Amino acid sequence: MTAEAEHPPIAIVGAGLIGTAWAALFAHHGFPVRLWDPQAAAMDRAAAALPRLSAQLSAIAAGQGGPQDVVHCATLAEAVAGAALIQESAPEDVPLKHALLAEIEATMAPEAIIASSTSALTWSDLGPGLAEPARLITAHPFNPPHLVPLVELYGTDPVRMDRAEAIYRMVGRVPVRLRKDATGHIANRLASALWREAVYMVQEGIADVEAIDTALANGPGLRWSVLGAHMAYHLGGGPQGMAGYLDHLGPSQERRWASLGTPALTPEVRAALIDGVAREAGGRSIAELEQDRDAALIALLRARKADG
Amino acid sequence: MTAEAEHPPIAIVGAGLIGTAWAALFAHHGFPVRLWDPQAAAMDRAAAALPRLSAQLSAIAAGQGGPQDVVHCATLAEAVAGAALIQESAPEDVPLKHALLAEIEATMAPEAIIASSTSALTWSDLGPGLAEPARLITAHPFNPPHLVPLVELYGTDPVRMDRAEAIYRMVGRVPVRLRKDATGHIANRLASALWREAVYMVQEGIADVEAIDTALANGPGLRWSVLGAHMAYHLGGGPQGMAGYLDHLGPSQERRWASLGTPALTPEVRAALIDGVAREAGGRSIAELEQDRDAALIALLRARKADG
Repeated sequence: MTAEAEHPPIAIVGAGLIGTAWAALFAHHGFPVRLWDPQAAAMDRAAAALPRLSAQLSAIAAGQGGPQDVVHCATLAEAVAGAALIQESAPEDVPLKHALLAEIEATMAPEAIIASSTSALTWSDLGPGLAEPARLITAHPFNPPHLVPLVELYGTDPVRMDRAEAIYRMVGRVPVRLRKDATGHIANRLASALWREAVYMVQEGIADVEAIDTALANGPGLRWSVLGAHMAYHLGGGPQGMAGYLDHLGPSQERRWASLGTPALTPEVRAALIDGVAREAGGRSIAELEQDRDAALIALLRARKADG
Repeated sequence: MTAEAEHPPIAIVGAGLIGTAWAALFAHHGFPVRLWDPQAAAMDRAAAALPRLSAQLSAIAAGQGGPQDVVHCATLAEAVAGAALIQESAPEDVPLKHALLAEIEATMAPEAIIASSTSALTWSDLGPGLAEPARLITAHPFNPPHLVPLVELYGTDPVRMDRAEAIYRMVGRVPVRLRKDATGHIANRLASALWREAVYMVQEGIADVEAIDTALANGPGLRWSVLGAHMAYHLGGGPQGMAGYLDHLGPSQERRWASLGTPALTPEVRAALIDGVAREAGGRSIAELEQDRDAALIALLRARKADG
């Protein structure tokens, strides 16, 4: 295999936070990257951000064959021409995405993959924008996408799904496949379910925002970073594992589920959430909080590599 | 302050998995530990397990003034006499705990703290077992308790709550206080809410057990280990933080909440869960899975220490 076959060109369409992170990631791992955004200001912000993202990736591990330069393209056609995978990271607007997907489809190599980073929309929402919907997959990263390994995949063409999965693995991602198209994919459904109960506890005065976040990060969140929720109950079930858990504690879980809350984002709850995160932030700006988050993620990802 | 005032004796009542982990933790950090269980077999298993738990703790960091020996006591009175904190980790049975708490109260120093490790029960369930319920707090650890830092506290005596919190901080725990007594405390309510949606996705065929666990551990779980759920939405709200998030995405979160599922643990769902974790385990026994979990947690805890 030639180097080009191993690292085919990648087009990044949309140079917001998500697109820029994808560009840094593919370039770090030796892929030629072609970036395009209709807004010059977005292209400028991406150019300014890329060195920092690249340095963060280098702090975790060197990329094979990278870092490559990110080529800033003047037109969509220039970015898409010859790309094996086109990572679409445009705003979450169906008509806008439909128009963009049609434009991509008109110039792409017929066998290429269009991978949408969409978070709020689904494959079924976007497919009608293409003449051949099988060319589209959804490939949803988790923010910040260059650091968090998860990519959630859904598509209908098994050949493209396999090729996309192989490419994402080459850039250190952990791809996960949905069996059915679903709003929120997997991760945001889990996050939404957890946050609903977190907001309920704030609403009911059971615990304040900071206590809940601290409990999560030092308890279940920490454990879920090494062990999924199903597996955690398997280990909580004694020698019979999940079967033992369901026999002994399944009924109490069903009772617990019935006792979980359904909060409403009333003015009082909104105020409690806004005041609570302000206290938790302790004067740190959003940018400083992001820096702290990234530094902690990089330390964990380095530890994972060392742990093998 | 004398060494004894800094490290007062700790009684561990109940030598199951939880009690043994507490014993290892307090001893590692220099506290004199007195362990008692009515069953000789439990005491033998604890003695066999303690060196391994102690070695795991040493792999994270040396404990100040530790490790101390764990004194195995022949009677409850011997364990409790002179203890500043009595960590009760008996089976989750109200009449059994009431009887045990009464027996502890009869021999404890009047100003000491009884801290129940209870997971399924609440302070309100246990308080009636004591002549002076203010002596009791709930102090719920998250499994495995010697590795996961969270301890969830609830009690009615602010002096005892402060003293307990100080002691738990001395052994590297992150104490979090509930404002109201609640079944499941904070962490298990969050875990239960998340698992409900995870089981729903299995039930509906959206994703299989292994995909959900992989997504969690490489996406939201990883991020929640460094950043709580509220704070994650604060960072997802743009320059206005949580206020911006609630303005722009609050309504879509409420719609998402309404779309989350309520699964039932039917025979079909049970079979899917049991088969799914078996595939995910890939032949690894419960003991091997626990070893893998512990090794990964130790690597992350070392990384946290290095990250500061």
